[in-house]
Amino acid sequence: MTLESDPKEFESRLEAIRVWEPRVQALVDWDEPAARKRFSEAGPGPLAGWSLGVKDIVDVEGMATRSNANFIPWRPAARDSALVEVLRARGAFVLSKTVTTTFAYFDPGPTGNPWNPDHTPGGSSSGSAAAVACGMIRLGLGSQTVASVNRPASYCGVVGLKPTYGRIPIEGVFPFAPSFDTLGLFTADVADSLAAFQALTGESASPSLPPIRVGLLPDQKVEAADPEMLSALAQAGRRLESAGFQVSSAELPSCCEEAHGNHWTLVAAEASVVHGGLYRVFGDSYPPKLRALILKGGRVVAAELERIRSHRTRVREEVGRLFGDYDVLLCPSAPGAAPAGTEATGDPRFSLIWTYTGLPTLTLPYCLSQAGLPLGLQLVAPPNREADLLAIGERMESVFEFSRRHPLGLGREMAGYPTDGE
Amino acid sequence: MTLESDPKEFESRLEAIRVWEPRVQALVDWDEPAARKRFSEAGPGPLAGWSLGVKDIVDVEGMATRSNANFIPWRPAARDSALVEVLRARGAFVLSKTVTTTFAYFDPGPTGNPWNPDHTPGGSSSGSAAAVACGMIRLGLGSQTVASVNRPASYCGVVGLKPTYGRIPIEGVFPFAPSFDTLGLFTADVADSLAAFQALTGESASPSLPPIRVGLLPDQKVEAADPEMLSALAQAGRRLESAGFQVSSAELPSCCEEAHGNHWTLVAAEASVVHGGLYRVFGDSYPPKLRALILKGGRVVAAELERIRSHRTRVREEVGRLFGDYDVLLCPSAPGAAPAGTEATGDPRFSLIWTYTGLPTLTLPYCLSQAGLPLGLQLVAPPNREADLLAIGERMESVFEFSRRHPLGLGREMAGYPTDGE
Repeated sequence: MTLESDPKEFESRLEAIRVWEPRVQALVDWDEPAARKRFSEAGPGPLAGWSLGVKDIVDVEGMATRSNANFIPWRPAARDSALVEVLRARGAFVLSKTVTTTFAYFDPGPTGNPWNPDHTPGGSSSGSAAAVACGMIRLGLGSQTVASVNRPASYCGVVGLKPTYGRIPIEGVFPFAPSFDTLGLFTADVADSLAAFQALTGESASPSLPPIRVGLLPDQKVEAADPEMLSALAQAGRRLESAGFQVSSAELPSCCEEAHGNHWTLVAAEASVVHGGLYRVFGDSYPPKLRALILKGGRVVAAELERIRSHRTRVREEVGRLFGDYDVLLCPSAPGAAPAGTEATGDPRFSLIWTYTGLPTLTLPYCLSQAGLPLGLQLVAPPNREADLLAIGERMESVFEFSRRHPLGLGREMAGYPTDGE
Repeated sequence: MTLESDPKEFESRLEAIRVWEPRVQALVDWDEPAARKRFSEAGPGPLAGWSLGVKDIVDVEGMATRSNANFIPWRPAARDSALVEVLRARGAFVLSKTVTTTFAYFDPGPTGNPWNPDHTPGGSSSGSAAAVACGMIRLGLGSQTVASVNRPASYCGVVGLKPTYGRIPIEGVFPFAPSFDTLGLFTADVADSLAAFQALTGESASPSLPPIRVGLLPDQKVEAADPEMLSALAQAGRRLESAGFQVSSAELPSCCEEAHGNHWTLVAAEASVVHGGLYRVFGDSYPPKLRALILKGGRVVAAELERIRSHRTRVREEVGRLFGDYDVLLCPSAPGAAPAGTEATGDPRFSLIWTYTGLPTLTLPYCLSQAGLPLGLQLVAPPNREADLLAIGERMESVFEFSRRHPLGLGREMAGYPTDGE
């Protein structure tokens, strides 16, 4: 941890932005002088000099939170969101807002995947994931209502932490479906994720860990992952076993099948409430996917919501029992690599069950696909065990060695980070 | 029930509006030609010719739903709310939108109490309750998130039905706190409430009722009602006993005490989500009470919401057990008569517990206070037993005989209704 900021590190971020931003478009209204001013005004602390990319649904004082909905005449936020306030108090500074899909749903912003700009970076936290991948920022803030942290982390080849539901206060964040909305962190490696999480919560990992019991979970009770992703998961299991982890197969309870439909019904109903007011004024300008969701959600009746919430409680309990046999579960972060095209943001189905249950997850970059795009694997832990999740993730990261096999000059190297041996 | 509309009845509504609207201001942008057109276009049905007053948070096709928030550039609603759609299909027509407090919270609109314009009509369904009291409309639509049907019904001396939570679809209604928001009906008497409820749901009351067990409930685990109200309740109990009802004292479980604080916390959190979007654009114009609630609600954390929802489930179960001993509970609808002043809408505490638990309630006008203002009593039934509640209410109404002792020329007589013996 650093207690004073490092001007060289700051300059390396600006350099990464100069190189990558024209191609990737991860930032909202990039303003170098303003960023420089915020850097110079930041205080000391465990995150001193950390450059933040703030998903543009998260309030930063004095900036309008635009949610990629420029058809609405937003006012500047009167104060920082709770998350940004704490990070600033620990020494971090806001380098830039980052691109979100419109209102954090499926209508994409301009951001391209840093590994191949003709592919999606994933959504909805597109800009934060892509900006970390390019070394533009050290810490990207995102949020997940279905898969919006883990999917872009996997597609962009970065580390994505989605803590337990409710773990990080959501105050000052534009909601989407409040019973799921969870703030998350993007970083180049697990050490940074752990440092940020500790700075936020004061929590440390257990100093030593017994042999870790890993449950491999290829099947998420929904359409299967790509063969490439399933091979990667199986290979990861073998490598972890060689490295001393206790690896065996795990299976989700059958009640998880219904979670997929239920999740979307509840999200639609909640989004319809969240957007009810704005939609009554600005609905003509709403993008098509969100508009359809809002109309669908308005028709969900109370009894259906009650039934789904009971099911969610039951799934939480049944899935929770798996952690009697495993310390963590390991599964794909997404069905495969980022799909081609930037008009859609990819399939969220492999993170949905963990948002439905509110469990903490950590996406680790694992390898590159045949097409040269990252494939991420997702670790899942019991509620409120983020510190252990991160400690286990750090050990796995050293087994997987993804960042050291980075072929495109992205990430740590690109940003001028010291590499091993320097 | 009528199957054809009655032009004389329609003209009597217009006459009531001419006489009372200048003093009471219950209607939003009263437009007689438009109302006449809608009357002439209405179809036949069990509610043929019924004039609707629609609280201005409920969508009517082609009209902007303004929620007493004229600082927002609303668009006209694209379609009717589900409730209005069904009522129109049964023959009713929209006579006018009615005044709501701003967004159905505590910042009042212009409406005065028909019994004394220097007193509040109650809120938030101020206009619908007052318009029914004056005979301007036959059926007033309202909504209740804390006490917004029962309190104005009591203050205005009309019948107010709040069905079970979720019983009437809320689609096309601007929400306030969706886990409580419940649509309700205002009518001059119980027969009209029953007719409207049957037309909405197809449900009939039991053809004959055994002796009714009434639990008198003066204490709602919160600051006591006015002595005048408590005397009225005790007297009502004696009169019901004389009329053949089985009357005894009931007591709420002690867990209800905590409901009052919990309810407000949950309402604040949900209202903060509902208004999050609009507040980000129009917050500078928001009225002070709602603004304070939104800011408070944004700070409620997920764990607190979880705790409150568990408590609510427990209170629902414990209060539900009372219905092993009683068919209905009878309690004050409000602490007393409508307070003086129109800058506030009165105290909601005597309906809160029934909104917290989602139970159906029916307010019956009982008598006039010393100051000549109505005092209403509130019947409470088990979930989804509205038809029985209304049948019991109709029998009690004939014992109480409120409408026949009406001193001010309001209500049925005012509206040109036939009275007994005509």
